[in-house]
Amino acid sequence: MPYFDVASAAPLHPVARQALLASLDEGWADPTRLHREGRRARLLLDAAREAAAEAVGCRPDELVFTPSGTRALHDGIAGALAGRRRTGRHLVVSAVEHSAVLQSAASLEAAGGTVTRVAVDRTGRVAPGAYAAALRPDTALAALQSANHEVGTVQPVAEVAEECRAAGVPLLVDAAQSLGWGPVEGGWSLLTASAHKWGGPAGVGLLAVRKGVRFAPQGPADERESGRAPGFPDLPGIVAAAASLRAVRAEAAAEAARLRELVERVRTRVPELVPDVEVVGDPVRRLPHLVTFSCLYVDGETLLHALDRAGFSVSSGSSCTSSTLEPSHVLRAMGVLSEGNVRVSLPAGTREEDVEAFLDVLPGAVASVRERLGVPRETSAPAAPATAQGRGEAELVVDALGKRCPIPVIELAKVIGDVPVGGLVTVLSDDEAARLDVPAWCGMRGQEYVGERPVEGGVAYTVRRRG
Amino acid sequence: MPYFDVASAAPLHPVARQALLASLDEGWADPTRLHREGRRARLLLDAAREAAAEAVGCRPDELVFTPSGTRALHDGIAGALAGRRRTGRHLVVSAVEHSAVLQSAASLEAAGGTVTRVAVDRTGRVAPGAYAAALRPDTALAALQSANHEVGTVQPVAEVAEECRAAGVPLLVDAAQSLGWGPVEGGWSLLTASAHKWGGPAGVGLLAVRKGVRFAPQGPADERESGRAPGFPDLPGIVAAAASLRAVRAEAAAEAARLRELVERVRTRVPELVPDVEVVGDPVRRLPHLVTFSCLYVDGETLLHALDRAGFSVSSGSSCTSSTLEPSHVLRAMGVLSEGNVRVSLPAGTREEDVEAFLDVLPGAVASVRERLGVPRETSAPAAPATAQGRGEAELVVDALGKRCPIPVIELAKVIGDVPVGGLVTVLSDDEAARLDVPAWCGMRGQEYVGERPVEGGVAYTVRRRG
Repeated sequence: MPYFDVASAAPLHPVARQALLASLDEGWADPTRLHREGRRARLLLDAAREAAAEAVGCRPDELVFTPSGTRALHDGIAGALAGRRRTGRHLVVSAVEHSAVLQSAASLEAAGGTVTRVAVDRTGRVAPGAYAAALRPDTALAALQSANHEVGTVQPVAEVAEECRAAGVPLLVDAAQSLGWGPVEGGWSLLTASAHKWGGPAGVGLLAVRKGVRFAPQGPADERESGRAPGFPDLPGIVAAAASLRAVRAEAAAEAARLRELVERVRTRVPELVPDVEVVGDPVRRLPHLVTFSCLYVDGETLLHALDRAGFSVSSGSSCTSSTLEPSHVLRAMGVLSEGNVRVSLPAGTREEDVEAFLDVLPGAVASVRERLGVPRETSAPAAPATAQGRGEAELVVDALGKRCPIPVIELAKVIGDVPVGGLVTVLSDDEAARLDVPAWCGMRGQEYVGERPVEGGVAYTVRRRG
Repeated sequence: MPYFDVASAAPLHPVARQALLASLDEGWADPTRLHREGRRARLLLDAAREAAAEAVGCRPDELVFTPSGTRALHDGIAGALAGRRRTGRHLVVSAVEHSAVLQSAASLEAAGGTVTRVAVDRTGRVAPGAYAAALRPDTALAALQSANHEVGTVQPVAEVAEECRAAGVPLLVDAAQSLGWGPVEGGWSLLTASAHKWGGPAGVGLLAVRKGVRFAPQGPADERESGRAPGFPDLPGIVAAAASLRAVRAEAAAEAARLRELVERVRTRVPELVPDVEVVGDPVRRLPHLVTFSCLYVDGETLLHALDRAGFSVSSGSSCTSSTLEPSHVLRAMGVLSEGNVRVSLPAGTREEDVEAFLDVLPGAVASVRERLGVPRETSAPAAPATAQGRGEAELVVDALGKRCPIPVIELAKVIGDVPVGGLVTVLSDDEAARLDVPAWCGMRGQEYVGERPVEGGVAYTVRRRG
């Protein structure tokens, strides 16, 4: 059963499993104790730290293990901000960072600090130079992911690090999605990662803080991990994390080339096989194993379930798959379609035939969801010339209040042919996804997005028919 | 090789190992995802939560898993304080709580709050009524351990919970040392624990917050674990933790009775076998498996190493075994001797012959340390009547500045016979342990502790010879 959601969590690498089992017997004691069990644990911890530091490209005493990538980000950002409190309380992040970064930014704002969110282009990439423009005399910290977790776009970290260095601002790099593929290039100051993304166990993150970077751990003091990660360490997990990082790195170059080709196949074939699809993310500067696309007139959750029933595990940034019923902040920042969103992230070792099987199944799955939603066949094609005059109405209003994504866009598509070219369709919707998907639909279908205005109970989105 | 430091960390219980192995395959995926791997992980997480909640005695939706007992305490205290911020910023703790509680208290003070540290008696127990006296109209939270981690004394949690309930103040119970033995009785409001203390894996703590208790999680928001424990959960660890908690509980009553008898044997025999020993902690209201004693004129670190060479792993609260070179805050709060401190905590399954072997080895180990430190044989006995007149000096000053525990006390013991009864010996010391150990020595040897005063480079401790 092909599992294509490695960007959420990877199955345990065989080397991780082996290391974990071995250290269950050797590494359960407290490494700060003086007895033999403690000393043995200490040796394991030191060796794991050295191996991880070598893979990260830092000194062992610059690296601590945390209970997760999220905690590494929370604690790393808080510590770096506090360490430069005298400089100021301004933080620069990209708009497409992991939620752990954006929530840290929100915490800073709640505490009276300020945040600049650097915009991305339609591929999800920040412009080199954008961080330079965002840095201020009171900037305490900048944060940028090495690569995006939802669309795979690789960020210009080395250039941004150079800009930050020139301004004397430390740069924190969230390397969660890329560390298994290779070290982060460039002059970063802090780096975080998460072991279960590279096939290590859950419960292990890491935080590297370069010597000379001001850092003041927040929260109650604790002696463990240089005072930067409180609590008894999960030593078997740490040992397994370090061992598997080394193992995946040994396979990384060959596996990256192989998966890059499989992903390229998905990027090319999906738009050929499925009508009205937008493949998102940078087509070249991207992670080797990850591709994301969105399908017009499709409910992401239903599509996920259809694929799941067919044996394929993927994830989605569509609003209907989120507990908050909001579309992914990444897709929103990119300004791309969020409905029917599918993220495919291939684990190491994915076979060509599994990807082919997915490409066989996908068109039928999408079609069945569209059929169930009552999408008329013709809405999948450009509005027919025969209806170019419409029924004479210069403006139609579609009330989709109370209806969830993708219904508002489907309703819009159904009636656009009913107004004359130059006529207007206004969709009333209280679904947050419509804000993103109505303009995205216009872009995909060559219609003109006029704008939005608040109305009672929701928002009115207006579209002018162009073709 | 007997390992007698289960209060630091227990070796993995066979049931924990089995559950861990099983869930490595089934529980690595993200439990919030919709695909089959995610749903399977979710089922495991839900089942583990139910099992843990049953063992704790709370509802599953009141319990979250944290990355450690320390994080459960840090986050639990911070959340409870914030939840009652409008009531006030006063926290009540006992003086013998785990450092994670005391450091949380220090954080509160640094942020402008106030803390009352409730004193304990010489057994390490808080008086019922002491919490009631400490509660104020602005008290946001009280915290009390179920049993002490260094001396095993069981606290009157149910009585204190009743006092807190009457005052409308939530009580947080740190159950780290006792949860494997049974649920915490009484009307607590919050409870924390740590799996590696009961034979579960490291990396798993738990935090229970009763419905109706005001709780406002601090730090950046995160959807996981009801918003109370950020980061991807270590699901195999959690499953193993819950399974082993259930397993140790099934064995708890029988094992407690057996270990209680073995500990009783240590409590009785050690003072018979080793001169000048103080067994500390409550002799009756105590954990079944833990006993602590201190040996006069002994360097704790050297004694630990001697026992380690003989094959016994124990721990110590002596200053020389701590990275801060300060004696354990628990021993300090109890006002008992800290030098030559040994904590013996027996794992489940400890054999009678291992304890007997320890009792065989201990006297020689202590004697060899004393010999190496140049402790005169006669200092181990009360000052001899023959020297009752001393050498005529009414006051002697011993300069032990720059010398570490137990040297200042040894120097004191060497000269006490040199002053007449009623005469004074003043010890100059810059070792923090002397503050505790000079008075404790006086208590053990029937001498009178007069007091201390600051002098250049340290403190002068004055003793009046009584016998």
